[in-house]
Amino acid sequence: MLKPQQDAFGQILWDHLEGRTAYEIVERDDGFVDVSCGPLRYFSAYAEWPEHERAAMEYAGARVLDVGCGAGRHALHLQEQGRGVLGIDISPKAIQVCKRRGVKRARVLSVTAVGRRLGAFDTVLMMCNNFGLVGGAKRAPWLLRRFAAICSPGARIIANSTDPAATENPCHLRYQRHNRARGRMPGQLRIRVRYQTQCTPWFDYLLASPREMERLAADTPWRVDRVLDAAQGGSYIAILVRR
Amino acid sequence: MLKPQQDAFGQILWDHLEGRTAYEIVERDDGFVDVSCGPLRYFSAYAEWPEHERAAMEYAGARVLDVGCGAGRHALHLQEQGRGVLGIDISPKAIQVCKRRGVKRARVLSVTAVGRRLGAFDTVLMMCNNFGLVGGAKRAPWLLRRFAAICSPGARIIANSTDPAATENPCHLRYQRHNRARGRMPGQLRIRVRYQTQCTPWFDYLLASPREMERLAADTPWRVDRVLDAAQGGSYIAILVRR
Repeated sequence: MLKPQQDAFGQILWDHLEGRTAYEIVERDDGFVDVSCGPLRYFSAYAEWPEHERAAMEYAGARVLDVGCGAGRHALHLQEQGRGVLGIDISPKAIQVCKRRGVKRARVLSVTAVGRRLGAFDTVLMMCNNFGLVGGAKRAPWLLRRFAAICSPGARIIANSTDPAATENPCHLRYQRHNRARGRMPGQLRIRVRYQTQCTPWFDYLLASPREMERLAADTPWRVDRVLDAAQGGSYIAILVRR
Repeated sequence: MLKPQQDAFGQILWDHLEGRTAYEIVERDDGFVDVSCGPLRYFSAYAEWPEHERAAMEYAGARVLDVGCGAGRHALHLQEQGRGVLGIDISPKAIQVCKRRGVKRARVLSVTAVGRRLGAFDTVLMMCNNFGLVGGAKRAPWLLRRFAAICSPGARIIANSTDPAATENPCHLRYQRHNRARGRMPGQLRIRVRYQTQCTPWFDYLLASPREMERLAADTPWRVDRVLDAAQGGSYIAILVRR
């Protein structure tokens, strides 16, 4: 369980909900710091989402597990559409925010703790780059198999990621070379989120190209069935189906 | 001389000028991180400045030393008004930005290196909280005397600061207590600026109330003659005159 001092991400959502300005600062282990698209995006309504994100919602079934549900924007939309949604997030404050905003079922849980006691699902949702929560090449197949264990035969994973090659920033290119040199995937970021004096533990967050995602899924019950591309920036949403 | 890798502040200005989005992330030595008002403010035109800032420009004389001139917004305004301005900044990239924007005289120089070879001035300008560059209780009187040595008898210092008491943020209040406990002034921040992988060295930056500023000037040739208050947030601009 994250300590309050570690729940930087959830506190950002909480403060935004309370009307305070809150920036999400992301620090990478090479010292790179940046401000994320942030709360405004996490609280955005369906009509404001990019085209490929809205299109992806059409692939959601009746029982959705929303992994890393954040402020609950996808859960709220799917609930309104009559789908059953369980939102999970490692951040206690994020789950509080979800509940305040009307997400019916949301609980504090790490993606690595997903198991059958959560029930059965026909959709695993990983939006807002949350395919990244697979962490890297080692954990990804393990986690994808774990998802299969809680999913019905016709299930889908809706997985948002960003192709790490879609950048010209020399800092990112250098980091990707450094990753390769130490045996990691190029887009395997080691990051933490900071807000005021709060700071999450370091964690691995993977940016994978569609081909990399295919390879990660190769020895699992899933395959990439189609890819919805964003207009720009390398973001895409893969629809994975059970073989 | 700052190495390029240390010139985070200047690179932010440069990238903004080139049309890229650039956030100024400020990190304090207690781990507090925040995003500053940033490039938009540093490049703002006179008409967009807060009331007390515009009013303060009326106190500038014919020969102005702009200390920590940044992107040069005050220097440019005063130049247009026919004043002679020398902008100094420790950041080489900031000085490049000033020159590209039309500041006629700007040079890379730390405030602590100010001396008679710069010429004589009747105004020392410390805007955008740059009274903070006095650092703390020890350096402030030394620096104020140094200013006196390059200033004419009727000279003024136009000094922008923020009352550190004007906050309810528990992180700031805790930091101020911590500062008192270690014999520093409450608003004596130890900070560094970060941008992508660039990072300035740590430096002391002082937020002082008008009373604290008066005390710091007590044994110097300067006295606080008047204080122009911002509408909110504790920001103020003191006009110091030679005794």
